[in-house]
Amino acid sequence: MSEILTIGEPIVTFASKEPDVSLRDALEFHKILGGAELNVAIGAQRLGHSVDYISQVGEEPLGDYVIKTIKEHHVGTRYITRDADYWTAFQLKDRVTQGNPTTQNYRRGSAAAHLTPAVVDQIDLTDVRAAHMSGIFPAISATAEAAFRTLLKRLEAANILTTFDPNLRPTLWPSRGKMVTTLNELAGHAEIVLPGVEEGEILMGSTDPEKIADFYLRGARTKVVIVKVGPAGAYVKQQSGESYTVTGFKVAQVADTVGAGDGFAMGVLTALLEHKSLRSAVMRGNAVGALQVQTYGDNDGYPTPAGLQAFYQQEGVVED
Amino acid sequence: MSEILTIGEPIVTFASKEPDVSLRDALEFHKILGGAELNVAIGAQRLGHSVDYISQVGEEPLGDYVIKTIKEHHVGTRYITRDADYWTAFQLKDRVTQGNPTTQNYRRGSAAAHLTPAVVDQIDLTDVRAAHMSGIFPAISATAEAAFRTLLKRLEAANILTTFDPNLRPTLWPSRGKMVTTLNELAGHAEIVLPGVEEGEILMGSTDPEKIADFYLRGARTKVVIVKVGPAGAYVKQQSGESYTVTGFKVAQVADTVGAGDGFAMGVLTALLEHKSLRSAVMRGNAVGALQVQTYGDNDGYPTPAGLQAFYQQEGVVED
Repeated sequence: MSEILTIGEPIVTFASKEPDVSLRDALEFHKILGGAELNVAIGAQRLGHSVDYISQVGEEPLGDYVIKTIKEHHVGTRYITRDADYWTAFQLKDRVTQGNPTTQNYRRGSAAAHLTPAVVDQIDLTDVRAAHMSGIFPAISATAEAAFRTLLKRLEAANILTTFDPNLRPTLWPSRGKMVTTLNELAGHAEIVLPGVEEGEILMGSTDPEKIADFYLRGARTKVVIVKVGPAGAYVKQQSGESYTVTGFKVAQVADTVGAGDGFAMGVLTALLEHKSLRSAVMRGNAVGALQVQTYGDNDGYPTPAGLQAFYQQEGVVED
Repeated sequence: MSEILTIGEPIVTFASKEPDVSLRDALEFHKILGGAELNVAIGAQRLGHSVDYISQVGEEPLGDYVIKTIKEHHVGTRYITRDADYWTAFQLKDRVTQGNPTTQNYRRGSAAAHLTPAVVDQIDLTDVRAAHMSGIFPAISATAEAAFRTLLKRLEAANILTTFDPNLRPTLWPSRGKMVTTLNELAGHAEIVLPGVEEGEILMGSTDPEKIADFYLRGARTKVVIVKVGPAGAYVKQQSGESYTVTGFKVAQVADTVGAGDGFAMGVLTALLEHKSLRSAVMRGNAVGALQVQTYGDNDGYPTPAGLQAFYQQEGVVED
């Protein structure tokens, strides 16, 4: 029985070891594990929360690797099914010394894309206190979208705290229109919506954090919108109309921004489960994001409770 | 205008660098290029023959890598089409210090599996003097089988010297029965059939080289059967009834047998194009096989003309 649930697709990454060499020319690769929702699961576990990760992988070495690695992170695997007919998603990623890496995804028709609503129907929500949902999973297939909606409906019916990160992946969607319509509708079924300011512009047409927040506050279930405004931190607006900005932490050297948004969501969610104030939860989101951008891995920067406290002490702040 | 044609699926191999570590646990991989028919093409080019390789790859970095690498081997790429809807086939391969490596193939539904007979219809056979066909390509999909048959029919109609290596890949076929029936029928359209003795047992039920040869000599076009009997060499039988064994070369240390059968076919084919006797052609097949098993790569052991001569001198033999 875990406290937190998330659903997603794990991605095995073959990360090039050769700086600034194209994926065509690179010859040496290192295998790592990624996936936005899995990052959230790993980070929440590291902060002391029990997490179950819902997914499906193939009956092959990459699937074996995913399950073994998730177990090593002490994230629950009982809701990870295997499908011998499809492969585990993977990607190639180049190594760049400037800017963001190029990825080539081999995930279409993956095992996770064949995860069905029937699997989600079987999930025991009894002890679940919170769930994190991202806009990536419903993008990977119609079946995945159906499974995602089934879970979202069950979470809503059970009144379980739910965060939703739009996590735009335009290449996974059949069209931009379908992406915008679907994600905006799904967001309305989450209590807390976590758009980035650039995502807001694509999804509802404004870069104004307050306008973005007002747009998502129209969602039937949505009570809080937290708009990530990059290094400046996050703008919060609640259903009551209360709003404020929680300033981000200064980072001297950004290694790579992968995993920062997932870390932000994880920070917010775990702090709320620990009965911290919403303001402190957003501060934790900023803190985890700041720690994560200083590392190259997808989730290596996520802190332990002690690491988080040390960071807060250094920054001279406290949670309340 | 190339002298030799072959058709096949290139496979990008992510080869583990960690000895005796499972594909689940291995983390460091090296990218190499393989594929049975491509090995034949690379080897024939290295011996001074011009070769065109017919295939299809994806519009992604692995496809770019395949084309770049084939060009580096000076094998013709004009018959390699691209398909943006499908990926280039790849595999994971573990590294073993004993026995044969385990491979995990990600090739189902690949770009090559979608190569159509229409592509093969466009191929200019004017200057083609020989073709090498392997039983792998027709195994990968119904479309590939249709393309393969179209090419085989055109080669037969143009009376172009054709070698056929059954190259059993049971996991690619829907059933063993379909594999046996199809390969035995396809073999009948080649002038020279090159079964291994263990393949013969599966395909026609005997380990007796002469019985295997007699079986394939019933093929409408088949004039010569060369049965590979491992380190012992090869048993040859011709339509006339003439038969003999060409003894293999002794190899002190076998690194790995990958590419030996392709090297054998390539040796036979190139020697015949150079107007060597059939016996010398089989000797060259044995020689290339012996050189290849001493290297770990899929085609690194294939010789240049000078390398082949040096090997013959060392062994005290000459071609006639």
